[in-house]
Amino acid sequence: MDRLIERIIKTGNPTVVGLDPALDLVPTYLKEKEYQKNGETLKAAAKAVYKFNKGLIDALCPIVPAVKPQLAFYEALGVEGIKAFYKTVEYAKERGMYVIADAKRGDIGSTAEGYASAFLGSVTIKSTGKTPISTKPVKLKKEGKGEKNDKKEKRVYGQLLAPNEYAPFPADALTVNAYLGTDGVKPFVNACASNDKGIFVLVKTSNPSSGELQDKCIDGIPVYEHMGSMVENWGSDTIGTHGYSAVGAVVGATYPEQIKELRAKMPKTFFLIPGYGAQGGTAKDIAAAFDSNGLGGIVNSSRGIIAAYKNAGENEHDFAGAAFRAALAMKDDLCREINLSK
Amino acid sequence: MDRLIERIIKTGNPTVVGLDPALDLVPTYLKEKEYQKNGETLKAAAKAVYKFNKGLIDALCPIVPAVKPQLAFYEALGVEGIKAFYKTVEYAKERGMYVIADAKRGDIGSTAEGYASAFLGSVTIKSTGKTPISTKPVKLKKEGKGEKNDKKEKRVYGQLLAPNEYAPFPADALTVNAYLGTDGVKPFVNACASNDKGIFVLVKTSNPSSGELQDKCIDGIPVYEHMGSMVENWGSDTIGTHGYSAVGAVVGATYPEQIKELRAKMPKTFFLIPGYGAQGGTAKDIAAAFDSNGLGGIVNSSRGIIAAYKNAGENEHDFAGAAFRAALAMKDDLCREINLSK
Repeated sequence: MDRLIERIIKTGNPTVVGLDPALDLVPTYLKEKEYQKNGETLKAAAKAVYKFNKGLIDALCPIVPAVKPQLAFYEALGVEGIKAFYKTVEYAKERGMYVIADAKRGDIGSTAEGYASAFLGSVTIKSTGKTPISTKPVKLKKEGKGEKNDKKEKRVYGQLLAPNEYAPFPADALTVNAYLGTDGVKPFVNACASNDKGIFVLVKTSNPSSGELQDKCIDGIPVYEHMGSMVENWGSDTIGTHGYSAVGAVVGATYPEQIKELRAKMPKTFFLIPGYGAQGGTAKDIAAAFDSNGLGGIVNSSRGIIAAYKNAGENEHDFAGAAFRAALAMKDDLCREINLSK
Repeated sequence: MDRLIERIIKTGNPTVVGLDPALDLVPTYLKEKEYQKNGETLKAAAKAVYKFNKGLIDALCPIVPAVKPQLAFYEALGVEGIKAFYKTVEYAKERGMYVIADAKRGDIGSTAEGYASAFLGSVTIKSTGKTPISTKPVKLKKEGKGEKNDKKEKRVYGQLLAPNEYAPFPADALTVNAYLGTDGVKPFVNACASNDKGIFVLVKTSNPSSGELQDKCIDGIPVYEHMGSMVENWGSDTIGTHGYSAVGAVVGATYPEQIKELRAKMPKTFFLIPGYGAQGGTAKDIAAAFDSNGLGGIVNSSRGIIAAYKNAGENEHDFAGAAFRAALAMKDDLCREINLSK
């Protein structure tokens, strides 16, 4: 978690912006431009999404440490959406941002290894050496003729880390659902330890019905607390220089009492805190997640930042400026409650 | 769930084959062929995966009603892997198979809608009509020049259901993780009801540590049973002609006592049963999931079928034949315990 914490200290801002580009949040002019070029297609929509994200990343990277693209909104545009996700991850990292893939993955051990490789690790592609293989070099970006527009762009997806070794989606961290227990989580923890990455396990989520299971008591202790103890435990061998482990927890801003309780019981666990703003959580509600250095958590806002251009007095052509101003206001709001020492 | 049940009755076989193409399960000759053409790349690996799946689907479709591609193994090959997943879904459906996307998705309501659109629904891509749009027709498969090999193949991803309406990944059913509670599940249930699709919610998973949370008792009742009651309830408005709802449950073959218990408490819920074979579950263990007509569940096998060519006496060039024989043996094994009336 150190890399994230250092970005937070550098920007003085414990905010992560959720890149959740539901199509109705993408500025019309961006979409129309792509529909003109590529028709009313998933490809056009995905290209508009990427341009939206790129503009947001450019505007936000000086003041916001991290982005959190939510996979659902990319999967909803099919293969083309996944390309936009890949390009978004790559671009945010180019601009120095920490990227949390919000995918809430989780499966049995052997399968969780696949997910861990996909988002936090790498895959080795190696011939037996007994047959000749293509000697075409792998190019990561191959620009076509006619660079006037991006229509001709040919791109190879996957980051080449070393010969024969590819990062399929080179994110810094991943959200994880641990309903399946330890053997479904270990592959992610191992990937964190080997590759300096992080995970955030769902503990107490921000949605209204999170309590249906999470608040139920086992031996007098709610499920979210049991999950919290498991998380604290899973991370125990990965404590970084700032005192937090590579295994974080998702704890909703909409449940301030639980934040306080969980912080007390999980002193080594960094919190990813959704639910600020649109869902109702306030800076006061989340203050208890933070330690005396103003560290310990990162607060997500999605719609409140990326769709700030929809507010009165704003203009969709200045979506990036509106997002910047909204992020600055959020930073100020948070920093009134959290003493982040420089 | 009727469409799945009718396929099961037609084939006389309550089996779903898990298309979990970890690279070490893909026959070497298929991989080498692609490495020769495309180098040691994710693209080459993904193409080998698709060819493997295609061979398996061709061999299995006469005797197996359904396939269950596990997203982790496709995501592990990045964007190229997702293309292979898309093509696998499309091809299996072309060959008449029912496709369960094993993705274990789950999120808060507004986000779960995105996942539901991606796998069970559709997305509308529509211009405002105020600006001209490209009139290039959308072609679902555009073959390039030189059809000798598939190198030139250009393909548009996403199934066009109606003008402006696309199915991003047109599966029949999806596995869902409901740790977040009802508001995270409703969008999936709604998509099932609108589009004649199904979901399978994780109740009692087949892995060794599933009990860490799932077996813990709340008011004397284990978590998996609470989850089971929620599932039975979520499905109550979607009962089909065979008496089962669109909201199924994942219940592991490795826990026969729990299968019996859950079947008694969830009479309207269809079970997806992993854990047969490699993980240790037997036909006897799962028999209690089935009703007197031999209906009520579908049993998954992945490695045991798709990697049957690795068994003694088999040959990787006949991977499809080996899979066919293994599937036939599994069918016979299951049908000794389950009386599936024709």
